[in-house]
Amino acid sequence: MSGVSAVEFRVRYAETDQMGVAHHANYLVWCEFARTDHMRSQGVSYRDLEQRGLRLPVVDARVRYRQPARYDDLLRVRCWVRETSSRRVTFGYLVERADDGLLLATAQTALIAVDSEHAVTTIPRVVREKLVAVPDPIRL
Amino acid sequence: MSGVSAVEFRVRYAETDQMGVAHHANYLVWCEFARTDHMRSQGVSYRDLEQRGLRLPVVDARVRYRQPARYDDLLRVRCWVRETSSRRVTFGYLVERADDGLLLATAQTALIAVDSEHAVTTIPRVVREKLVAVPDPIRL
Amino acid sequence: MSGVSAVEFRVRYAETDQMGVAHHANYLVWCEFARTDHMRSQGVSYRDLEQRGLRLPVVDARVRYRQPARYDDLLRVRCWVRETSSRRVTFGYLVERADDGLLLATAQTALIAVDSEHAVTTIPRVVREKLVAVPDPIRL
Amino acid sequence: MSGVSAVEFRVRYAETDQMGVAHHANYLVWCEFARTDHMRSQGVSYRDLEQRGLRLPVVDARVRYRQPARYDDLLRVRCWVRETSSRRVTFGYLVERADDGLLLATAQTALIAVDSEHAVTTIPRVVREKLVAVPDPIRL
Repeated sequence: MSGVSAVEFRVRYAETDQMGVAHHANYLVWCEFARTDHMRSQGVSYRDLEQRGLRLPVVDARVRYRQPARYDDLLRVRCWVRETSSRRVTFGYLVERADDGLLLATAQTALIAVDSEHAVTTIPRVVREKLVAVPDPIRL
Repeated sequence: MSGVSAVEFRVRYAETDQMGVAHHANYLVWCEFARTDHMRSQGVSYRDLEQRGLRLPVVDARVRYRQPARYDDLLRVRCWVRETSSRRVTFGYLVERADDGLLLATAQTALIAVDSEHAVTTIPRVVREKLVAVPDPIRL
Repeated sequence: MSGVSAVEFRVRYAETDQMGVAHHANYLVWCEFARTDHMRSQGVSYRDLEQRGLRLPVVDARVRYRQPARYDDLLRVRCWVRETSSRRVTFGYLVERADDGLLLATAQTALIAVDSEHAVTTIPRVVREKLVAVPDPIRL
Repeated sequence: MSGVSAVEFRVRYAETDQMGVAHHANYLVWCEFARTDHMRSQGVSYRDLEQRGLRLPVVDARVRYRQPARYDDLLRVRCWVRETSSRRVTFGYLVERADDGLLLATAQTALIAVDSEHAVTTIPRVVREKLVAVPDPIRL
């Protein structure tokens, strides 16, 4: 409803590295998970989009890591739309520890619309109307 | 030529976990990498097979872990065909540390042939003729 | 309570491969996630065990893949203890699609107790008493 | 010698997703692999640094994806130091297809020095002297 959604999950053992914290590449996987869920909450099933031939590959990603996440921590990832255009949509994310709300990371990813041949295309209007940009809830 | 091929690569940092060793799920990824390379060495490009509509999903996997692999270790994975039938092929693997030949793990995976709709099919004769079973170089 | 626990989660996009299904190595990650949760449900925090110097690396893993899991599928992994000894514990798993209960895979992993130097040790009695073997709910 | 190093490797099947291309999170893993190798080529073993208690976690990452990488593609990742300070070092990367040099992605990651308690510390002078910044070989 509000334009900012949230998913919660625990850090998996396989996601840690020998530094004893979650490996930094996983944050992109978590953001993607939050994005799928956010789109669903706005009435857009990414699974359905793909079945109809539309794909949204990531073309730009940025993550700022502030505090480490640890094995078995319950995390919360908030997700929202930052910006849209006819062919591109940018999502913002914040990753926090669910117990105490400690901010662990902020991120953003930009996606473009491509068809099943990986050629750039436009985002259908019905999809764009549902992916409404909202103000950042935090400074990225 | 000999029916047993080998690939070498270093353990990546992202593959470690907080136990300070390579996470056990990666061994299946390494075996798959060795299998792709083994098939190529026998004259079968898995990439081409897929483009022609044949897929070989893993239906059974077994790994025995003997010694841990560590970050930046140079590993060698040997791969060979253990058994074939009209619809199924089983590969064997051994994972060793390249420097001193220390045995780290043994594994086997069974794959079946499916078409692009994921329905079981037969392995083309030209492929089977190239994937010749050899005696295990080590007891699995 | 019953000795068989269950976790539910959705298949992540990053877990798919170009066959259009969840890559087979992820099942070991999912089993590990279910195992952590199962141990917690039996009163054993694996996180705490590690902090006290005990580790339980996987020494043997076996997975039988029956039906593919797909992106965004809600999965349920059931986990239980199959067998314990002074130094080793074996867990069983079944992976099913939550919506309709379709069986996707069965698996088992054996773990041994090691200390922080990776030397084999015994599982503390207080831990073993909580990890009670139960009959397999399904034939593995 | 030149301050820009290169590693080559093939895209693994497990790294693809159902879009039929390498999943975007893997680029951070590949950059890390290139970084380890780059440091070694400059006379710094990251493995040794960690054993002496110094860690270099990533605090900021940015990737721009230009063209997709595909299964079994031979990739080349070039890596260099962009900037250093007493506590921070920034690396640049470019990912290209080895066969034809097609540019697939550019990236940068910033790392800070922390001790084994994850407290910020300084990069030892002997290390900094080896990690010399060079001009970007490409516009990031």
